[in-house]
Amino acid sequence: MTTRAALDYRTAGVDIDAGAEAVRRIRSLARGTFTPGVLSEIGSFGGLFRPDLTGLADPVLVSSADGVGTKLKVAFLAGRHDTVGRDLVNHCVNDILVQGARPLFFLDYLATGRLAPDVAEAVVRGIAAACTENGCALLGGETAEMPGFYADGEYDLAGFIVGIADRARLIDGRGVRPGDELIGLPSNGLHTNGYSLARRIVFDTLDLDVDSVPEGLDGPVGDVLLRTHRSYLPLVSPLLAEAGGIVKAMAHVTGGGLTDNLPRVLPPGAAVDIERGAWSPPPVFAFLQRHGGLGDAEAFRTFNMGIGFVVVCAPGERDGLLAWFRRRGEPGAVVIGRVTAGDGAVRYP
Amino acid sequence: MTTRAALDYRTAGVDIDAGAEAVRRIRSLARGTFTPGVLSEIGSFGGLFRPDLTGLADPVLVSSADGVGTKLKVAFLAGRHDTVGRDLVNHCVNDILVQGARPLFFLDYLATGRLAPDVAEAVVRGIAAACTENGCALLGGETAEMPGFYADGEYDLAGFIVGIADRARLIDGRGVRPGDELIGLPSNGLHTNGYSLARRIVFDTLDLDVDSVPEGLDGPVGDVLLRTHRSYLPLVSPLLAEAGGIVKAMAHVTGGGLTDNLPRVLPPGAAVDIERGAWSPPPVFAFLQRHGGLGDAEAFRTFNMGIGFVVVCAPGERDGLLAWFRRRGEPGAVVIGRVTAGDGAVRYP
Repeated sequence: MTTRAALDYRTAGVDIDAGAEAVRRIRSLARGTFTPGVLSEIGSFGGLFRPDLTGLADPVLVSSADGVGTKLKVAFLAGRHDTVGRDLVNHCVNDILVQGARPLFFLDYLATGRLAPDVAEAVVRGIAAACTENGCALLGGETAEMPGFYADGEYDLAGFIVGIADRARLIDGRGVRPGDELIGLPSNGLHTNGYSLARRIVFDTLDLDVDSVPEGLDGPVGDVLLRTHRSYLPLVSPLLAEAGGIVKAMAHVTGGGLTDNLPRVLPPGAAVDIERGAWSPPPVFAFLQRHGGLGDAEAFRTFNMGIGFVVVCAPGERDGLLAWFRRRGEPGAVVIGRVTAGDGAVRYP
Repeated sequence: MTTRAALDYRTAGVDIDAGAEAVRRIRSLARGTFTPGVLSEIGSFGGLFRPDLTGLADPVLVSSADGVGTKLKVAFLAGRHDTVGRDLVNHCVNDILVQGARPLFFLDYLATGRLAPDVAEAVVRGIAAACTENGCALLGGETAEMPGFYADGEYDLAGFIVGIADRARLIDGRGVRPGDELIGLPSNGLHTNGYSLARRIVFDTLDLDVDSVPEGLDGPVGDVLLRTHRSYLPLVSPLLAEAGGIVKAMAHVTGGGLTDNLPRVLPPGAAVDIERGAWSPPPVFAFLQRHGGLGDAEAFRTFNMGIGFVVVCAPGERDGLLAWFRRRGEPGAVVIGRVTAGDGAVRYP
């Protein structure tokens, strides 16, 4: 791992041996993700990546930064640190997939009060596994020990991704028209959004434990809340390669839910009507709505409500796309609504 | 700012109006940094950047992630939030400059417990100003509100940079030989490293205030400790353009000081002898050594000790390079030591 040599600090509350041990393990995990584009030796100041520009007439880099948010608190409660790294990478991968980009490399920022090598290793193991699954090199990162910033055993985690796309094949929603159809791809849970509210309901209002299996939930609280944010790359990337022109727009359903994320890819003069009954969300959403006393408006603006990714196409392409998703093993792909004329709002009539 | 629309969350301890206001201000600051390469509309999922590949036979992306560390605590004490963003950007710029890269774009991660729009704006104002100074677009970022993670009024900050270089002109230290000379470029203070120790000495041992002006320090404690991490890009980039072949290796003196950073660019079989008397460090270093009872070994492995960046060249190029730096207004550039045969150690004979 490239910039890991900059582990702060040698003094004042920092355990040098623990830091060195964590760096050693992390470097080894990172090395396992290296794709042919990686040029840098471990320990150099910046990570070097030589993009394969073959077939790209006008290469455009697509980049995004993200965190895991307070889903981390659930990981702390459960003492499980190997899932949040996957959440982070998959979130970033989806964010650039929306514009048609394939990932090239990823870097992480892991900040703690006092470094626990086992925890750091578990976090980076999750990151490295997801990088490998997405064909993305873990090119570098920073592990910062910041005494007085984080509670014992806690940490924050951020990620940065860089991908590439040909300019002519960027997907920007420009061609979206009233009448176009929205195909939703299922989420497996909250992914990485809405955890401040979910935690308040589950751990404060209901006073549950991570091991509780309450009625209405399909597993122990900790397992359900830690389910990994899905990467839609393995499903959507072949679609873009085979039938990219059919996809008019895509949206990643993150903070703000369908309500706030769909307008980000609508052209002026367009709005969306969602058919609420078109899909069956995982039980966690009804559980949270019931016990949190959440109305639909708030729920659809806080949680993904069972739809993690949306593909927009012309009406005539709908059935072909649905069949394509079914052939690729995604029977949960369904029409969740359509584009209408309007002022950018998402309605749930 | 692209991914700012993902401001977490709408509920549970998050002030929606404050968040929206911060995002509005931040987007405007980011837009001001946009260079011709930026393609993305504000609000898209990923930031789009079209690199200018003219004249690059074999383009290589160079990337790095960094934080500001506990220098942030000094900013909190002083209530000054417009300098740490500069520290972050300049640190990242220097990290990729070491390999001969010029910056293309930057993304930040700003995490708080509860967002204060004025503070967030000040932080991003510093980031944006430094991006502009370094010709680097602030392409995106994430502002995360994470209740329960950070103390009131506190935040963490991480940055991520992507630059580009032609593969044939990458600087990797491969040609470094015993006898080569090290030219040091002055720092103006601690830059972003050693703050956990410095804070302990200044605020705990000496019980000083940010406004104190103790004997032996060239200004109030807060001002001295918050001096901005220098960017060496304006100085070194023209050198690489005019005489790149002369530079055999470079090092950015960050966490670990000269002791740990110089070995990162030495080939096997090389070591370094430093001439301690060759330069006059800013007074803060002697102040910290004296009041912290720090030996030289510890000081040179914790602080930059007045040298922020190092350029390695053949003996015959030394005088020409020194003259070049003086002509460019950097009289503080001095020979600080030379490469010897050895096992990678940095010695202070």
